[in-house]
Amino acid sequence: MDTYGRLTEEIIEELSSVLGPGGIITDDRDLLENYSWDQAGRIWGHMPEAVVRPGNTTQVSAVMKIASRYRIPVTPRGAGSGLNGGAVPLAGGIVLSLERMNAILEIDPVNRVAVVEPGVVTNDLCRAAAEKGFLYAGYPMSTETSYIGGNFATNAGGGKVVRYGSTRRHILGAEVVLASGEIIELGGRYRKDSWGYNILQLLIGSEGTLAIATKLTVNLEPKPGKTVNLLACYPGIEKLVESVSKVIGSGEKIISCEFMDRNLVRYTTEYLGCRLPEQDRSGGYLIIQVEGDSEEQLEESYEKIGNICLSCGAFEVFVAESRTDSAAMWNVRQNGLEGMRARDPYACGSGDLMVPLSAVPEMLRRIEAAGREWGLEMGIIAHIGDGNIHPIPIKPEGMTPEKWAIYSEEFFEALIKEAIKLGGVGSGEHGVGHVKQHIITQSKSPAELELLRGIKRTFDPLNILNPGKMFFPLGDR
Amino acid sequence: MDTYGRLTEEIIEELSSVLGPGGIITDDRDLLENYSWDQAGRIWGHMPEAVVRPGNTTQVSAVMKIASRYRIPVTPRGAGSGLNGGAVPLAGGIVLSLERMNAILEIDPVNRVAVVEPGVVTNDLCRAAAEKGFLYAGYPMSTETSYIGGNFATNAGGGKVVRYGSTRRHILGAEVVLASGEIIELGGRYRKDSWGYNILQLLIGSEGTLAIATKLTVNLEPKPGKTVNLLACYPGIEKLVESVSKVIGSGEKIISCEFMDRNLVRYTTEYLGCRLPEQDRSGGYLIIQVEGDSEEQLEESYEKIGNICLSCGAFEVFVAESRTDSAAMWNVRQNGLEGMRARDPYACGSGDLMVPLSAVPEMLRRIEAAGREWGLEMGIIAHIGDGNIHPIPIKPEGMTPEKWAIYSEEFFEALIKEAIKLGGVGSGEHGVGHVKQHIITQSKSPAELELLRGIKRTFDPLNILNPGKMFFPLGDR
Repeated sequence: MDTYGRLTEEIIEELSSVLGPGGIITDDRDLLENYSWDQAGRIWGHMPEAVVRPGNTTQVSAVMKIASRYRIPVTPRGAGSGLNGGAVPLAGGIVLSLERMNAILEIDPVNRVAVVEPGVVTNDLCRAAAEKGFLYAGYPMSTETSYIGGNFATNAGGGKVVRYGSTRRHILGAEVVLASGEIIELGGRYRKDSWGYNILQLLIGSEGTLAIATKLTVNLEPKPGKTVNLLACYPGIEKLVESVSKVIGSGEKIISCEFMDRNLVRYTTEYLGCRLPEQDRSGGYLIIQVEGDSEEQLEESYEKIGNICLSCGAFEVFVAESRTDSAAMWNVRQNGLEGMRARDPYACGSGDLMVPLSAVPEMLRRIEAAGREWGLEMGIIAHIGDGNIHPIPIKPEGMTPEKWAIYSEEFFEALIKEAIKLGGVGSGEHGVGHVKQHIITQSKSPAELELLRGIKRTFDPLNILNPGKMFFPLGDR
Repeated sequence: MDTYGRLTEEIIEELSSVLGPGGIITDDRDLLENYSWDQAGRIWGHMPEAVVRPGNTTQVSAVMKIASRYRIPVTPRGAGSGLNGGAVPLAGGIVLSLERMNAILEIDPVNRVAVVEPGVVTNDLCRAAAEKGFLYAGYPMSTETSYIGGNFATNAGGGKVVRYGSTRRHILGAEVVLASGEIIELGGRYRKDSWGYNILQLLIGSEGTLAIATKLTVNLEPKPGKTVNLLACYPGIEKLVESVSKVIGSGEKIISCEFMDRNLVRYTTEYLGCRLPEQDRSGGYLIIQVEGDSEEQLEESYEKIGNICLSCGAFEVFVAESRTDSAAMWNVRQNGLEGMRARDPYACGSGDLMVPLSAVPEMLRRIEAAGREWGLEMGIIAHIGDGNIHPIPIKPEGMTPEKWAIYSEEFFEALIKEAIKLGGVGSGEHGVGHVKQHIITQSKSPAELELLRGIKRTFDPLNILNPGKMFFPLGDR
């Protein structure tokens, strides 16, 4: 069991002198409470002793030096939009919020990169890139709230991975602060690198357990051509999933291929006060975004995709004729979790199963079977073109929230085991946090766990960076 | 200084019983010599005590268990086409050649992956994928000789990185054998993964110093549309490099953007017994491969690119009208090193400078100035669209090969320092090996070197995997 230092008056003073006025919160319980939980839900939260809000890299480094000296746990935090408690200060200590480091420092058109601070809202980056004629292609569904630093920490995915890949592919460089407070620079404004072990790639998705990114150089893509959104309506799920691998393998330029089941659409449209077409007859929907270089070619392309859907059993395929139509269908997709939470505030959004595309039909069958077996009502959304499925179960009536927190994660544990049997893993984009920690620990071999512990020890010998997360239960490394 | 065990009769017998007949070479000096060097040149070679040629993962694992027990160095080897001595058994001991593990195990069209053994020649994989209607987009210039396992070990680049990225992007999963002999599975037939630290990404480009890949799951791309190759002729280099960022930023689908200078073309065409158009007037060439979805659109696209080149000072742009024309220009590009080596067998091919695209003009100026200063004649080829430049100097008359080995690497050391000043690194695709080892060690900060050493210790506590390479001089970890 690691023995951490406590935040004494003296240490708080030291931190204050580094951070300046407004840079540290210690006494205001209500304010502290805001930093004690994330979108996993309050039940997975834990109170920090202090929140620090550095404004630059030097301050982050100074905080880590102090934390190292006194062995104080430090939990880095972005927008708190994570779904597995990754930003929760499980061992107390300091929450290091990156909210004030939110500048878009540069958009460099020749090298096609942006240089940003970690507290930039992903959507702001997307917008700034678009203004200069580029696309930032990292596009988590939480784009309007999440920070790019959090996207880095979880290797966030989203709705355009089919075409552009996860956040991993779009991080070209980073300035990071180590547990010791040392600052190192990794990568840069280039896209090829065989100059030694790729530490940058190791840090992407390490959930703040190895280092804190304080500046990121991200890839910008040329703006896509014309796109169109299709909404394909299916009587049931079986037929629908058959379409998916055919759509993905069609050779057409698919930017998104998203799935929503009947329940999810029902609760989300109720929540939003809207309707999708054919809602009474549809057991499930696909939203497919197609790109083309010209109007003509785009039309050819979406005709082809539409016909694939129809031949696989879709009873109707709508082409969004306007921006409004497109926005309406994407609005339902993006608000899926909120919709389920309007139905039940305890709807559990942490499920993030990942299987090979060929295993999607079987995985969906097993999810439905497990739902029946566990007596759970759920909605399902999926980045189905990637094989990434989010079942969102709601709490059975009468179950206490405490019981439900455990029960729902046991349910996911069972499903993750199925995903692994099918050649998949337990998370495609959400990460592990502490909610899924005991599951990941079971799912890795002893030899791999030993490597993971060795890596952690190398980067963070005092185990002060985000303790209790990923592979490392509190009190064990 | 690490003290390694020697290969006794007893250990050789143990290895033989694991590997079976033909699985081990110990006595035949001529045969052993073949495994003592790579394309860095014989002068950088070192004799092994034995070469083992396992036929499967179990045998690789058994070899590593024996090597661990007696602390025998093991240097994994692919095709030996590397340019920095990565496959050289610097500390003697065992060369573990993967040449017999050369099966393409599966091409899985639904998940768009191939599963291959590490000894598969990259070109064979490309061909097998093409037969099933896919593209394997990792495409080093040595595609006809290099193995996919070597591509994994160096994070190989090549002529299509502008469009498809380096080997890193195309490795989705691996079975690897650790120094201890333990076997672990990483990744799989999917493209999103936030289920813990990405060890797979760490291993890509680690040059066999952390683990040995015994099976790889690689990404296949849909076949590209129609392509055309352009050859743009420029009076000099200054004008040429101006075109590059405009071509790359044009929004057209550029698959390749390659550069050859006058000297390289001269010696390579002499070697091949062919001519490129306008050879007398050209100070440099660009080969640009453009893709389009239709004949019409392709024509529009290459017209646009051609006009960019002309407006930047190209005096002629040829469109390859036939496969033969295309093959002829690519043949010169692919044989650049051989061409320079026909001029002088000591032509040094290890230079692999990497800079941001915006710094390419300045980097080329510095390369030319350094060439004059150091009194060196050279040819230059470059994956110029990536900012990746290979100067190939030849040995000055009268200099001994021993002196030249040092002198040429000192020259590259000076250039790498310039590349780093310009925001780049010392290798875009070749890797480090032992030839560039002292340079990389200088170019990383003490804090980063400490991390790198910690990672190495975690994976290979006895320092038996490819000792003396990358960051780790013999006798120091």
